[in-house]
Amino acid sequence: MAGLGQIAPFILTYWQHFLALLLGYVLAEVFRSRSSNKPRKIEAISTDKTGIVREADIQCEPPSASTASEKQPTIKTSDAATEEEHPSPEEDAFDLESGKHIPYSIERYGEDEMKKRSQEFYLEMNKRRSVRYFSNEPVPLEVIENIVRTAGTSPSGAHTEPWTYVVVADPEMKAQIRDLIEDEERVNYEKRMGQKWVDDLKPIGTTWKKPYMTTVPYLIIVFKQVYGLTDSGHRKTHYYHEISTSISVGMLLLAIHHAGLVTLTSTPMNAGPRLRVLLERPANEKVVLLLPVGYPAENALVPDFKRKPLDEVMVLK
Amino acid sequence: MAGLGQIAPFILTYWQHFLALLLGYVLAEVFRSRSSNKPRKIEAISTDKTGIVREADIQCEPPSASTASEKQPTIKTSDAATEEEHPSPEEDAFDLESGKHIPYSIERYGEDEMKKRSQEFYLEMNKRRSVRYFSNEPVPLEVIENIVRTAGTSPSGAHTEPWTYVVVADPEMKAQIRDLIEDEERVNYEKRMGQKWVDDLKPIGTTWKKPYMTTVPYLIIVFKQVYGLTDSGHRKTHYYHEISTSISVGMLLLAIHHAGLVTLTSTPMNAGPRLRVLLERPANEKVVLLLPVGYPAENALVPDFKRKPLDEVMVLK
Repeated sequence: MAGLGQIAPFILTYWQHFLALLLGYVLAEVFRSRSSNKPRKIEAISTDKTGIVREADIQCEPPSASTASEKQPTIKTSDAATEEEHPSPEEDAFDLESGKHIPYSIERYGEDEMKKRSQEFYLEMNKRRSVRYFSNEPVPLEVIENIVRTAGTSPSGAHTEPWTYVVVADPEMKAQIRDLIEDEERVNYEKRMGQKWVDDLKPIGTTWKKPYMTTVPYLIIVFKQVYGLTDSGHRKTHYYHEISTSISVGMLLLAIHHAGLVTLTSTPMNAGPRLRVLLERPANEKVVLLLPVGYPAENALVPDFKRKPLDEVMVLK
Repeated sequence: MAGLGQIAPFILTYWQHFLALLLGYVLAEVFRSRSSNKPRKIEAISTDKTGIVREADIQCEPPSASTASEKQPTIKTSDAATEEEHPSPEEDAFDLESGKHIPYSIERYGEDEMKKRSQEFYLEMNKRRSVRYFSNEPVPLEVIENIVRTAGTSPSGAHTEPWTYVVVADPEMKAQIRDLIEDEERVNYEKRMGQKWVDDLKPIGTTWKKPYMTTVPYLIIVFKQVYGLTDSGHRKTHYYHEISTSISVGMLLLAIHHAGLVTLTSTPMNAGPRLRVLLERPANEKVVLLLPVGYPAENALVPDFKRKPLDEVMVLK
């Protein structure tokens, strides 16, 4: 009680200051939620200006709603680059006027033929592996173009096709990209990872070097377009830009494999923004993946691991 | 000057309050950045406990670093469900000890053969379209299993394979899912969208109804595993769980098309958490997409749109 007796008068004297302190904190919170809500409103409006027909029936799951029911903090970042955009109901409602439609049909197979085709497709694609050892043999650009065309058939939120595939064939540019990546990697090894890890890695011989980047005939840098621009210069929201771009990359990977080439699904550590500048891509694009593409080296090695069996991937209801 | 003359004394008297106000704001900022950094540290530790071999050479691009250079707010949500996890350098360093390796080689084709294969693959996949009109004809489960197996060949961050494909064949369960989705959609139409939109949509005839959900032989609900659990019960971080799962969906879509079936890439609006509970999936899984799969209806229609030409998708350097 003695302690309280000492504190009480202090509080009585300075309660206004505590009030101001609290007010400042609250203001900060309010300001934050404001700054994270505003963009969404603007998107809804700008989307209403676009008459795009959606291919994907992508709908809205407001982070607030889902996070609330999952009992997770509802603090929302306004960094569109690290988070998926979520369509607003307005966008959805507007978008249901899907304009002109045309009949659609595809090749139809009997049950046995379907079973055979689906199994053959699986067996072929199951041979695909990510590879770090490439041959320097040239690959016709026409093949890479067909592979990127295949990726371009992916569905996307509101059919925005929010991807850009930068294909680097110029040896000088490949060298610059390798320098840039190794530069960041060196910092990762020397600073971000700490001396202990670097020491542990010495016997294994792993370093920050990425020789394959100048060996392969092509480097494909995949950009997602966080937002687009209408002819009138208005921002056009690209909902699900990361999911859409990643789905198209899945198609790219199968196309690469089907052509008899290999790649490595990698994300440039910390180098994204510098890569964007080096490759002269606009500010609305962000690097998602960097894929070296070529023939595998004769002595190519891959990690000896198994994939999950079907019963760990699929649940039947 | 008269105005300043009035304000000056006010400031002189209450400067301490303004100081406290500022202090409160700053404290809020500090507290926020604290709460957004903590989780990353924890992830790094838990990941160090896992000896998984990475297939994808997925590396770290800390949001703070990238956002800073992109001049975007560094506010970070800790809602792992709406944001990709980013590996820490520790995870990366640890993981470079990629264990046992084995030789790898794939079928090798001549230049002309490669051109032919890559073009044929593109031409086949370019016929794929998202479809909203399905036939109720049965499809062998074996075909769906092969399609999901194909999706399971996708690369993933640290080879965590962070996806679960729930295949719903039971008519009763399909009806429950349709009810759940339409229930949310009705709210979207009646509340979230506002009366104006609903009125505008009446002439078009679009409603909150999703009849195809009970027509198709299968509904595939795709879950991403936001984190995994080690045998010892420790949380295992799933880096890039959304990118990895989306890449595998890209493979799923091509497998569906190759088998002569169609689907619709859709995300259940607000229904994710309820779907997870209905399908009895654990708390570490979140719905990414809902894909009805079957034969197209005879009178199936698709929006009449074009895809971007290659020069809008690919940039050669």
